[in-house]
Amino acid sequence: MSENKPVRFGILGCAEIARKVSRAMRLAPNATIQAIGSRSIDKAKKYASENGFPDSAKVYGSYEAVLDDPEVDAVYLPLPTSLHLKWAVLAAEKKKHLLLEKPVALNVSELDKILEACESNGVQYMDATMWMHHPRTAKMKEFLSDPERFGKLKSVHSIFSYDAGPEFFKNNIRVKPDLDGLGCLGDAGWYCTRAILWAADYELPKTVTALREPELNEVGVLITCGASLSWGDGRIATFYCSFLTNMTMDITCGGTKGNLRIHDFVIPFQENVGQFYTASKSTFAQLSLGCGPIPSEHAVTTDLPQEALMVSVFAGLISSIERNDSKPEKKWPAISRKTQLVLDAVISSIQKGFQPVEVGN
Amino acid sequence: MSENKPVRFGILGCAEIARKVSRAMRLAPNATIQAIGSRSIDKAKKYASENGFPDSAKVYGSYEAVLDDPEVDAVYLPLPTSLHLKWAVLAAEKKKHLLLEKPVALNVSELDKILEACESNGVQYMDATMWMHHPRTAKMKEFLSDPERFGKLKSVHSIFSYDAGPEFFKNNIRVKPDLDGLGCLGDAGWYCTRAILWAADYELPKTVTALREPELNEVGVLITCGASLSWGDGRIATFYCSFLTNMTMDITCGGTKGNLRIHDFVIPFQENVGQFYTASKSTFAQLSLGCGPIPSEHAVTTDLPQEALMVSVFAGLISSIERNDSKPEKKWPAISRKTQLVLDAVISSIQKGFQPVEVGN
Repeated sequence: MSENKPVRFGILGCAEIARKVSRAMRLAPNATIQAIGSRSIDKAKKYASENGFPDSAKVYGSYEAVLDDPEVDAVYLPLPTSLHLKWAVLAAEKKKHLLLEKPVALNVSELDKILEACESNGVQYMDATMWMHHPRTAKMKEFLSDPERFGKLKSVHSIFSYDAGPEFFKNNIRVKPDLDGLGCLGDAGWYCTRAILWAADYELPKTVTALREPELNEVGVLITCGASLSWGDGRIATFYCSFLTNMTMDITCGGTKGNLRIHDFVIPFQENVGQFYTASKSTFAQLSLGCGPIPSEHAVTTDLPQEALMVSVFAGLISSIERNDSKPEKKWPAISRKTQLVLDAVISSIQKGFQPVEVGN
Repeated sequence: MSENKPVRFGILGCAEIARKVSRAMRLAPNATIQAIGSRSIDKAKKYASENGFPDSAKVYGSYEAVLDDPEVDAVYLPLPTSLHLKWAVLAAEKKKHLLLEKPVALNVSELDKILEACESNGVQYMDATMWMHHPRTAKMKEFLSDPERFGKLKSVHSIFSYDAGPEFFKNNIRVKPDLDGLGCLGDAGWYCTRAILWAADYELPKTVTALREPELNEVGVLITCGASLSWGDGRIATFYCSFLTNMTMDITCGGTKGNLRIHDFVIPFQENVGQFYTASKSTFAQLSLGCGPIPSEHAVTTDLPQEALMVSVFAGLISSIERNDSKPEKKWPAISRKTQLVLDAVISSIQKGFQPVEVGN
């Protein structure tokens, strides 16, 4: 890959989510779609055509062929989670940078194999958690980092739920134990967990305790669950995720001096602008006849949707590695791993009858 | 008390909160301030004058004198919780209707003695949970009861926190083990618990599990805590309350078909109007490029502040009892008792090392 040329992406599989991410690759100025591979070449051809892939994009009848294409710099891997270990490791071994759809692995031991393969092959790893890249996220972090406006973090509550509907419960990979075995925890809970870690500056909690009475489908996959997290220093967090509850995508952070709320953190209601709400030094009015301030709305606009920014940031890191012969950025694998560690602790707590579980390293 | 005459209130003690509630008595069309008693008659005189009591209001140098005044129909009791049992029972025995400030008692066994005294003396009991009486609360309940707009309740999260400040931690009754021994749980947690029960149509949860790592002050009073509640049927709730976290007063309800959010449920930002926010049948846009609907704001105006409505409802019940020689309304003692049962379960769970506790009857 020569300097100033866009990073060339290969896509493994014809996942629904890849429609959105391939659009992001078309929108990102420093990325292009180089190839797609599916076990069915006809499916891949149809998919490429439906999703506006450039004529130059190669269409392959296997995942291997994408990995073997020397013109593919980076791979986007949206396959079911149970296939991540195999294909992510293979991609890294073929020296392809890896944009890995979440949930990234079935557990941290699998993820560690993936991360080791990426590190030893000098390729960049990033999980495809889009909201991290919305400029709103940085603006919110500014607020949370402000000792005057927010103070010290005390509490976080996060919710990601949606009413998935009957078709989903019949056919979606997210409710199949052999495909996405972490169910709603891996899907929606991934975001809640990431939101909590993000608010806590990625400091792992000491203990994680699953909420009692998660809901499972008839084949034992989680379809509603939650947990509480504690850091041992007065910070606590809770989250709730479900495939059965109307769409809610909230983060509520409480600090000693302020609070922050957001209601569409995973996918903004609107593509070009995202809101969040803050209040600082709130007090009761005289005689407690009211209180204030009324939370302020902050609207953050973005020229590119968050998923295009994600692709662009990832491609930028790759260009920098290639240009400078430098090492991959370690932040992204580190926070991905921490997210997985918390998910693992939730599963472990459920298995141990909702006892508190120390978060691993 | 003759028909159409306002209910005549006696107030026990010169509590800060009674300034607001005595104002409410002046605003409510069917109530009047008849008397106030304090252990110091000078303090009571000053208080009556500062708070615009009518000239006709009696000022007594003891609580007993208020209870012995035959022209007092009802007593408002805002004393520290540790004194509630004694004075509430005495008030009931003197045939005074009882508006009891929260937290109503140190535990349900104390509350039961109060409720028994009220019942056997035929007096109305109500706890002073003001937000129950805001017309917004009824509007929100309409939404939660709508099978199309909200569906079945799945989750509730409630927060009530405020940054109480150094003066509070030195002197306030809410952090003194011999006065308000339930600390932030009895104060702020009372509202969260009531909100959750309200959302669940006052069905008690099966189990309550305290969140780990509550914070205590140096004399062992709770200053931050939380809990999860479960009903055993897929409904779960969590709450967080604190004296250390910037003011937040949220209820977030998730149903199968909708959600509801409110950010000032305890004390509305503004006295004459209260907002809440709902969304129904939310879905992702095509390709998940957005989602909707954006939550709708509902603004509910009120001519009288919620505390005046509370006084008015309470006075109305009393008038009805006196007029018709009928029994007191049982709803109010029942929901007060359920709230106390949940608080007791939180305390018990903390004492048992954060194990789940079955909620008593």
